[in-house]
Amino acid sequence: MIRRNVKIAYIGGGSKAWARSFMQDLALAGDLAGEVALYDIDVPAAERNQIIGTKIQQKQEALSDFQYTVSGSLEEALEGADFVIISILPGTFEDMRVDVHVPEAYGILQSVGDTVGPGGVFRALRTVPVYEEFAEAIRKCCPEAWVLNLTNPMSICVKTLYRCFPQIKAFGCCHEVFHTQDFLCCVLREMTGEKATRQDIYTDASGVNHFTWITEARYQNIDIMELLPEFLDRYFDTGYYENGPADQWTRDTFAYGNRVKMDLYKKYGALAAAGDRHLVEFVDNSWYLKDRETVKKWHFGLTTVDWRIANQQRLIRESAEMAQGRMDVPLAPSGEALVTMLRGILGLETVITNVNLPNRGQMPGMPEGSIVETNCIFTNGFVDPIVSRPLPKGALALVRRNCDNIDLLSEGIAERDEDKIFASFVNQPLCAGLGMDQARELYDRMREKSRE
Amino acid sequence: MIRRNVKIAYIGGGSKAWARSFMQDLALAGDLAGEVALYDIDVPAAERNQIIGTKIQQKQEALSDFQYTVSGSLEEALEGADFVIISILPGTFEDMRVDVHVPEAYGILQSVGDTVGPGGVFRALRTVPVYEEFAEAIRKCCPEAWVLNLTNPMSICVKTLYRCFPQIKAFGCCHEVFHTQDFLCCVLREMTGEKATRQDIYTDASGVNHFTWITEARYQNIDIMELLPEFLDRYFDTGYYENGPADQWTRDTFAYGNRVKMDLYKKYGALAAAGDRHLVEFVDNSWYLKDRETVKKWHFGLTTVDWRIANQQRLIRESAEMAQGRMDVPLAPSGEALVTMLRGILGLETVITNVNLPNRGQMPGMPEGSIVETNCIFTNGFVDPIVSRPLPKGALALVRRNCDNIDLLSEGIAERDEDKIFASFVNQPLCAGLGMDQARELYDRMREKSRE
Amino acid sequence: MIRRNVKIAYIGGGSKAWARSFMQDLALAGDLAGEVALYDIDVPAAERNQIIGTKIQQKQEALSDFQYTVSGSLEEALEGADFVIISILPGTFEDMRVDVHVPEAYGILQSVGDTVGPGGVFRALRTVPVYEEFAEAIRKCCPEAWVLNLTNPMSICVKTLYRCFPQIKAFGCCHEVFHTQDFLCCVLREMTGEKATRQDIYTDASGVNHFTWITEARYQNIDIMELLPEFLDRYFDTGYYENGPADQWTRDTFAYGNRVKMDLYKKYGALAAAGDRHLVEFVDNSWYLKDRETVKKWHFGLTTVDWRIANQQRLIRESAEMAQGRMDVPLAPSGEALVTMLRGILGLETVITNVNLPNRGQMPGMPEGSIVETNCIFTNGFVDPIVSRPLPKGALALVRRNCDNIDLLSEGIAERDEDKIFASFVNQPLCAGLGMDQARELYDRMREKSRE
Amino acid sequence: MIRRNVKIAYIGGGSKAWARSFMQDLALAGDLAGEVALYDIDVPAAERNQIIGTKIQQKQEALSDFQYTVSGSLEEALEGADFVIISILPGTFEDMRVDVHVPEAYGILQSVGDTVGPGGVFRALRTVPVYEEFAEAIRKCCPEAWVLNLTNPMSICVKTLYRCFPQIKAFGCCHEVFHTQDFLCCVLREMTGEKATRQDIYTDASGVNHFTWITEARYQNIDIMELLPEFLDRYFDTGYYENGPADQWTRDTFAYGNRVKMDLYKKYGALAAAGDRHLVEFVDNSWYLKDRETVKKWHFGLTTVDWRIANQQRLIRESAEMAQGRMDVPLAPSGEALVTMLRGILGLETVITNVNLPNRGQMPGMPEGSIVETNCIFTNGFVDPIVSRPLPKGALALVRRNCDNIDLLSEGIAERDEDKIFASFVNQPLCAGLGMDQARELYDRMREKSRE
Repeated sequence: MIRRNVKIAYIGGGSKAWARSFMQDLALAGDLAGEVALYDIDVPAAERNQIIGTKIQQKQEALSDFQYTVSGSLEEALEGADFVIISILPGTFEDMRVDVHVPEAYGILQSVGDTVGPGGVFRALRTVPVYEEFAEAIRKCCPEAWVLNLTNPMSICVKTLYRCFPQIKAFGCCHEVFHTQDFLCCVLREMTGEKATRQDIYTDASGVNHFTWITEARYQNIDIMELLPEFLDRYFDTGYYENGPADQWTRDTFAYGNRVKMDLYKKYGALAAAGDRHLVEFVDNSWYLKDRETVKKWHFGLTTVDWRIANQQRLIRESAEMAQGRMDVPLAPSGEALVTMLRGILGLETVITNVNLPNRGQMPGMPEGSIVETNCIFTNGFVDPIVSRPLPKGALALVRRNCDNIDLLSEGIAERDEDKIFASFVNQPLCAGLGMDQARELYDRMREKSRE
Repeated sequence: MIRRNVKIAYIGGGSKAWARSFMQDLALAGDLAGEVALYDIDVPAAERNQIIGTKIQQKQEALSDFQYTVSGSLEEALEGADFVIISILPGTFEDMRVDVHVPEAYGILQSVGDTVGPGGVFRALRTVPVYEEFAEAIRKCCPEAWVLNLTNPMSICVKTLYRCFPQIKAFGCCHEVFHTQDFLCCVLREMTGEKATRQDIYTDASGVNHFTWITEARYQNIDIMELLPEFLDRYFDTGYYENGPADQWTRDTFAYGNRVKMDLYKKYGALAAAGDRHLVEFVDNSWYLKDRETVKKWHFGLTTVDWRIANQQRLIRESAEMAQGRMDVPLAPSGEALVTMLRGILGLETVITNVNLPNRGQMPGMPEGSIVETNCIFTNGFVDPIVSRPLPKGALALVRRNCDNIDLLSEGIAERDEDKIFASFVNQPLCAGLGMDQARELYDRMREKSRE
Repeated sequence: MIRRNVKIAYIGGGSKAWARSFMQDLALAGDLAGEVALYDIDVPAAERNQIIGTKIQQKQEALSDFQYTVSGSLEEALEGADFVIISILPGTFEDMRVDVHVPEAYGILQSVGDTVGPGGVFRALRTVPVYEEFAEAIRKCCPEAWVLNLTNPMSICVKTLYRCFPQIKAFGCCHEVFHTQDFLCCVLREMTGEKATRQDIYTDASGVNHFTWITEARYQNIDIMELLPEFLDRYFDTGYYENGPADQWTRDTFAYGNRVKMDLYKKYGALAAAGDRHLVEFVDNSWYLKDRETVKKWHFGLTTVDWRIANQQRLIRESAEMAQGRMDVPLAPSGEALVTMLRGILGLETVITNVNLPNRGQMPGMPEGSIVETNCIFTNGFVDPIVSRPLPKGALALVRRNCDNIDLLSEGIAERDEDKIFASFVNQPLCAGLGMDQARELYDRMREKSRE
Repeated sequence: MIRRNVKIAYIGGGSKAWARSFMQDLALAGDLAGEVALYDIDVPAAERNQIIGTKIQQKQEALSDFQYTVSGSLEEALEGADFVIISILPGTFEDMRVDVHVPEAYGILQSVGDTVGPGGVFRALRTVPVYEEFAEAIRKCCPEAWVLNLTNPMSICVKTLYRCFPQIKAFGCCHEVFHTQDFLCCVLREMTGEKATRQDIYTDASGVNHFTWITEARYQNIDIMELLPEFLDRYFDTGYYENGPADQWTRDTFAYGNRVKMDLYKKYGALAAAGDRHLVEFVDNSWYLKDRETVKKWHFGLTTVDWRIANQQRLIRESAEMAQGRMDVPLAPSGEALVTMLRGILGLETVITNVNLPNRGQMPGMPEGSIVETNCIFTNGFVDPIVSRPLPKGALALVRRNCDNIDLLSEGIAERDEDKIFASFVNQPLCAGLGMDQARELYDRMREKSRE
């Protein structure tokens, strides 16, 4: 049976990486048909994706039937949508330069700078007003639609949607946990010879986005967590990368050696489930981000905005060449879960994966209403969270500290209350080394530069 | 891949109905092999089941490889078990006659009498001491085993296991929700023509055992709950039975016309998810059990102990004939979920179904630690509850009242505190019509007769 | 130091009993001065109270300095008020006749009929719309004022005020607990010879209004609760009245023999802290209100509306004679706590007494936001609840059942949702003996008669 | 009426400061009589206090009648006690030197070092085992006694008592909030001319010991919090000391200029209610303890162990001279609340003051069972907490972070789990500047030196 007339609004439809993998997966979903309405303030980018999407659908291997359109307005894209995907880049690269590099003058290094830390705070300041408008438009145009958020800072985006439209059916999707599941599959293979994919194992993960922790992981009757200590004995010193050679981090800004993850495991007894680049931003900066020497020692890198700009230009060139037919558009499963989630919601399969939702019981020990990431079940119009196991107290303390900061920041921005925003800023673990005065100075400087 | 050496201890292994359907399903699970250790204080009954089980395994259509043994002691059965199934009949039919029929002299009719009401209270009094021993034996012999309880009163059995051995991996299984899911499939078919099985739809159910409520039910993108009002218009007067003609209740003591369920839906806006015979015992007896006339009006029957005795004798005869080879042992899927759950836990498939577990967040609005029934996911050694939607306040009030009674009774029996036990007794909705003195008199009389 | 210019708005300022005792106490508060603005839809009644109040102030023994005025509108009374007292009679005696006497045809006797049971539900239906207007007017005219509610049904009145104006500084005052404290003083004196007033002892009370329970009571180092069992041995059969001879209930409709209270204590291990007339309405009507014989047996009476009408006429005559100077206006402390509370809030003394407030932690085990009655401290602009001890589980179950009903009713009226209102109605312990159909019939009949 | 035969066990009965002020206050409590049993491992110190206590009682102005005795064992002191005061110095000054001064080599300055931070953690490690024995002895010898703890780290001492003996009637007493109340009285006087003592005003304080926050403070109808902004304008630069000239901190190690408190108020909108020396240890050390320059800038000092040793010797000399009759023993009210609390519990007055108790609802937003400090009422055998107002989210985040650390440390010590203890150590705000390796090195060094 084919589900026809599915309308998907893609906000940030000019997106490079995310949109392309989505379009591929969608083309392979033979039981779906309908329209993808791309909307982006960068109209040419959306138009390129329209062409690319159409080309993908025209390939022999394509199984589904989707029309790609470009919407002239947010409302046009949302009207009648069954699903809304939001994947935007809030602000410019110049804004991001403020987020990531201005704090360096104060000794604060950031490996990503988009979730917490000074960079996360300022990105949130830019993003929330946009999301307030999204929530309002969804309420007006498609209140029954399912909303999949991909944008960072994840927790604050999802919180804003629920704050402005409490009946919204929104959740936040992130693949960081997947990588750690891949890592666990490597552990399994290394220690037992069993070959399993991340879909074959089951993990209990919970926390806040980019700082979730896995407490249990099993493949059939094998307890993978029990294999970790010996695996760490073997690989802690050299590092280990689930997706390439252990030293890939020296060449690839997104790679890392999992030494941070292993170190945290030794201390807290649970496995932090995100790339090391993210994890280090949730703890005092003296731990892993003290200086460039320390960063190197822990086998990860700092993603610079210059790199992001160059990468973006490369992706645009690629898109242009694909759109112009000078480069083939590949068609293969991406490994991402978006289309699987859609199929789950539509009742075409039952899917269990981790997503970000307001806490209503799924993460005991965390405040009600805070955005937490846990496993959820997707089936027949349900996206319902599964109750997670308690985190070890030490790990929970770290998570709560960050969750409190996020909630404080979220409330501060909602109320446009500078004191609350600054209170969240100064309480960021990455700001732990700043005196109050320095924190204020840095905050004011970032505020000023952002407004330029 | 076949999972070998799975040891299943079956406590109450002389059980008639439950054991037989379990043995059939197990024989059809081609990826399992191992031993079923039957233990029962009625040794001949266990021996008959050993023969029957062996015969089933020898059938051509049998796919799995299981040995049936009879254990001489509880400990022998439990030793090394991976799974423990408990399905016992606490006490004798004479005890049950006290439970069910003594209260009749006080105007209290009971349709089942094994969960709540005077019958449920007295059955709990008999059952808890036995379960205290089970918990202790499991702690000693197989602390890592998964324990599936089938015995009633369900909530109190499960609560006792967790009270006596907090690390136990126990849950309670009941098929009552399945019947209501079948009912919803009928609604779907009647109103839309769509044919779906209960596995194809998804329902959000929560409550206490035998008094759960479905708040949402969908088949793909069809909201089945929205079909109910019109269905009720059509069938409320005549009744409707998911498993036969509408008047089957006049011939079959387990059948019912779902008129109670429909009536409760009209009043509370959610669908109580158990057979009507169970539901009526959770509300004031004036509603549906006032007198035999009222019972008839609502299209259900009162199961008598005489009927149970006759039925038991019929089942014993049947077992004997099967054991002696004078009657063929059928082999077909039973529709029950036990073997599916086992396969889920063993990582052979991912299963979602309703079970009874201590509340740790899955049912907001209910006390932590109370035994609640919600959906759970079974996979790779995990049995994790899914967070349910809030019940309508009116329904929640009814559930909480019963849950408070159950917790009070459970605590009273644990502490052997007659005052608490009586406080629970007198607060039973089925006792609502008794004065304090009458309640005391009935209680004392039942106490005395039980001790005989 | 005298606190001048205190403005007190008295809504229901034509009130007979409550207003008169308040005016007396106020006259004796030598450190207060200001204005009492009486407002009542029965203008002559307010005018009589104005004259009486003025006369009281003119007495030699009067220590304070208050002007009594009659306001032409609610807003005029509220404007600039520091305190608002609300003590109204919602509806007419004809309405009350429906509340109290119509259910008799269905076997439901009510001793008061103003809090729970069919009478409480219908009184709530009349009262909530009026309180919605009060809340709105207070928000507009005197948002900072302290609001003391005296009207029943207490919990629903207070809940309505907070629902419509969440920042309101309102609480509900009731003297029922005082009487039980007096009873405990009698117990103390009888058993030990110690003479103490209720201000000398301390009790831990919690529950919902008219159904609070005392779990601990001490006078210095004497545990009064430990004296109860022997006291009950002595007085359970004959009854005991804290305020007169044991058989006063045969002559005085407000009196009672405390046999219900003693009976509940025997069963639940805590002392229900309200007059027996109230207590019996919170439990199944078969317990103490089965029939007139049962009522008599338990040594209390049913207050009829005819009695209320006659009493009202007597009070009006009395007021008129006082106003006309034909009868002396007495001036003596009333024993009520209103003026003491005012003085506490004004910082003139520190007062601890029981009041009704939304639960924000003071009564563990009860839902957040439900209106609960516990001890509170009144001092320097603070009215802060004290955390109560856990009730015995049996008593808590009874309280929660009623609290769930109240919250359901409150929500039903707020949303004008007849289904929720009826769900609360049918779930009233006093309706336990009705079948669903009878309950519906009674409800409809009361609805209809009320609208006449 | 005089309460005779009150037995008070004073554990740490050789205490200098605390014991002396207690003995004075006790001598002035004319309605009390009985025995004070002093117990101390430093027997001569206890004997000196026995002599001093006896001398105080013999003074003309002494109103009560107490015998001072020295107990040869803990059990002897506790036997039959009505009250137990615990005021010990866990370990030696050499231990304290490790607590306070070893971290200096790692850039960590501590102004007190007895509550949180590296010093607090190590003091807890020494103290918990002693408190486990206290709890056990109290359970055995005087399970009904009221236990007043004065020892730091307060939260962990109280938590240990409740962990080892859940029925204990213990609470923790601290005078830090009193000083901030004095400060508020100064604010009141400076801004309005009103003269009030701390007993005249009422404050809503909540948090963890030494890090409580005042959210509201009123004197009659004056809102003192509203006076703060202008007061800060006047005194923020110069500082202000409630107990002497603003620059007293330059001469007195216990004095401070309240600049930290004022700074926190500006940022968080609530007034931290402890001496600045304590407050600074609960936030990242970069804020106020970065270096000695920063400390000076914020107008407080670091109390050295050398100072403590010298002071101790001075106090011993003083005690000796008093005991030998060469120095007069003064007799005047101390301003401390211990004796007042005793009188409250005995029903001789009703007292409201702040104490430390397990959270059972009094501090919403904090975990149940964590030790929190809020107002409590003391009366007739009751010590019941008052529900506090919500803290501003920013302040609450700081409190929760410390509370999580305390709970983690407490659990770690209880389980002798070095990983949990270290996880708490490294998560201390004062350790924020350390890298993981440095933290480990410091921890190991302190561990080793402590064991010497």
